[in-house]
Amino acid sequence: MNDASPCLIALDWGTSTLRAWLLDDQGRVLDSRHEPWGILHTPEGDFARAYQTVVGEWRDAHPDLPALACGMIGSRGGWHEVPYVDAPADADAIAAGLVTIDTGIDHLSLVPGIMQHNNAETGALPNVMRGEETQLLGVMARYPALARKALLIMPGTHSKWALVERERLVEFTTHMTGELYAVLREHSILGRPAAECHEDATDAASQKAFDEGLKNAFDAGSAGLSGQLFSVRSRVLAGELAPAASLAYLSGLLIGEEVRSATAALGDQPCPPLALIGDDALCRRYRQALSRFECPDVETINDASVSGLMSIARRAGLIAPA
Amino acid sequence: MNDASPCLIALDWGTSTLRAWLLDDQGRVLDSRHEPWGILHTPEGDFARAYQTVVGEWRDAHPDLPALACGMIGSRGGWHEVPYVDAPADADAIAAGLVTIDTGIDHLSLVPGIMQHNNAETGALPNVMRGEETQLLGVMARYPALARKALLIMPGTHSKWALVERERLVEFTTHMTGELYAVLREHSILGRPAAECHEDATDAASQKAFDEGLKNAFDAGSAGLSGQLFSVRSRVLAGELAPAASLAYLSGLLIGEEVRSATAALGDQPCPPLALIGDDALCRRYRQALSRFECPDVETINDASVSGLMSIARRAGLIAPA
Repeated sequence: MNDASPCLIALDWGTSTLRAWLLDDQGRVLDSRHEPWGILHTPEGDFARAYQTVVGEWRDAHPDLPALACGMIGSRGGWHEVPYVDAPADADAIAAGLVTIDTGIDHLSLVPGIMQHNNAETGALPNVMRGEETQLLGVMARYPALARKALLIMPGTHSKWALVERERLVEFTTHMTGELYAVLREHSILGRPAAECHEDATDAASQKAFDEGLKNAFDAGSAGLSGQLFSVRSRVLAGELAPAASLAYLSGLLIGEEVRSATAALGDQPCPPLALIGDDALCRRYRQALSRFECPDVETINDASVSGLMSIARRAGLIAPA
Repeated sequence: MNDASPCLIALDWGTSTLRAWLLDDQGRVLDSRHEPWGILHTPEGDFARAYQTVVGEWRDAHPDLPALACGMIGSRGGWHEVPYVDAPADADAIAAGLVTIDTGIDHLSLVPGIMQHNNAETGALPNVMRGEETQLLGVMARYPALARKALLIMPGTHSKWALVERERLVEFTTHMTGELYAVLREHSILGRPAAECHEDATDAASQKAFDEGLKNAFDAGSAGLSGQLFSVRSRVLAGELAPAASLAYLSGLLIGEEVRSATAALGDQPCPPLALIGDDALCRRYRQALSRFECPDVETINDASVSGLMSIARRAGLIAPA
């Protein structure tokens, strides 16, 4: 543990992991914990005990420190359901939606998710996020140019494409690309060639297959993925795709289609500056996809949860303004 | 059993069912059998015994009758693998690809499937069918106008859209719509609202939700399904879709996207005459979808396997020309 003065206990408590940080007033990490105790995997579903295990030592040393958590811990299946804040939303609206609970050892504030309602004018469908809003605020706090206007992409199980403008989250879309990949691999006929071949593709073969997936998604144009998905199987049967590389090809098709769809949805509007937020390997794949769709200059930003939690804590008055 | 003179033992032996008919020289059904013994469900995987149980009585009464089967029974996982015939293909090419096996009680000819190879010029991806080619030949035999030029749609687990021209199967696409629906319902987050609500939607509510799915697929236009799929969940969370009707909405989105994609793939070409081949309930849903995409006049054709098997048997010389 660092000697600097701690000012916030911050948590990102999602579906699969629980991350916690002890932060100083600059948002520097003085200490951290990382447990595989997302809300679906919290031992015995006992959120209070998991919380105490993770932050108890910090709490004992610093009884008066505020504590703030974002993510699915504030959902119906989490510790306590925090009502969504409506989009468009800025940091103040999100900070105003905090709900504070008694954990048994202290008080913990939970960040609300965002709900977007049907918008007949823009054609936007209802949408929800819980956890990503904090990353978006973190990016906007760290990159003022992006906060003016940008399309921020958070790839993952449920990828989010969020349009931010004048430090507000304006509108967003969810692409279930990661979940689609997982269910097709595990439960559809498309996963069989790879499952039955008992060997791994080389990195070069995987990369080539991934590129072919991107290319086919691009070539399909507005016809989209519907008539292409089965090619994961038929290209294997036709002898032009190795079974071991077929999942990399599937990944290319799905990520390619996500990028094609999201850029097509912009219509005639010029594409705003783009940034990818997430882990390096996944962002690299999205950068490749984006460059095929003529978006070559895309900033990659690693996890922004800490910045976002600092930003919300300041707006909510949990810690002093910067 | 009818008294007319039988001329062919015909089988459509697919993945989930085995249907067999005793036909006269006009293709009229003199007797039939229907068993749930598709190649994935054949008792003990004993194709010879299933065959004998189904056709044994006919065979005893008519030792010299030819026997012909189409479908997945001729695939690698079936009784005997019959090599694919390359597309484009007509009835003669398909008849020339028959493979005859010794069943223990007689000889049985198996219809080949069709393989389409990569076509850089049209952008067509490799594709395969096995069983549908027989239905296509049946439709072309019964509807000479469609045989000149048509887009024949066979909805199902793996829907096929086949362009036929001058009595030839020219090109085809597979849309995994039925399988996608099944895996998303059973294994993704989209199936949960319906699974957890423990009640059925009324027919009217299901129909309304299905229509909303079609409408949203249509409204998405070239952006396609990628950013819409999650709305099966988010519309429930936003209170605008009843959990019990959410699967009907998913079905509308998926069928809508299939129709959007297939019609978009035509590009600037005028849409050829369309016909749907399959069971009434499913074809009705596709007809609704097609009418939203400005294809209101679509013929529906019930099962055409019998006509197709007759047609192939004639071309192959198993029975006398008509």
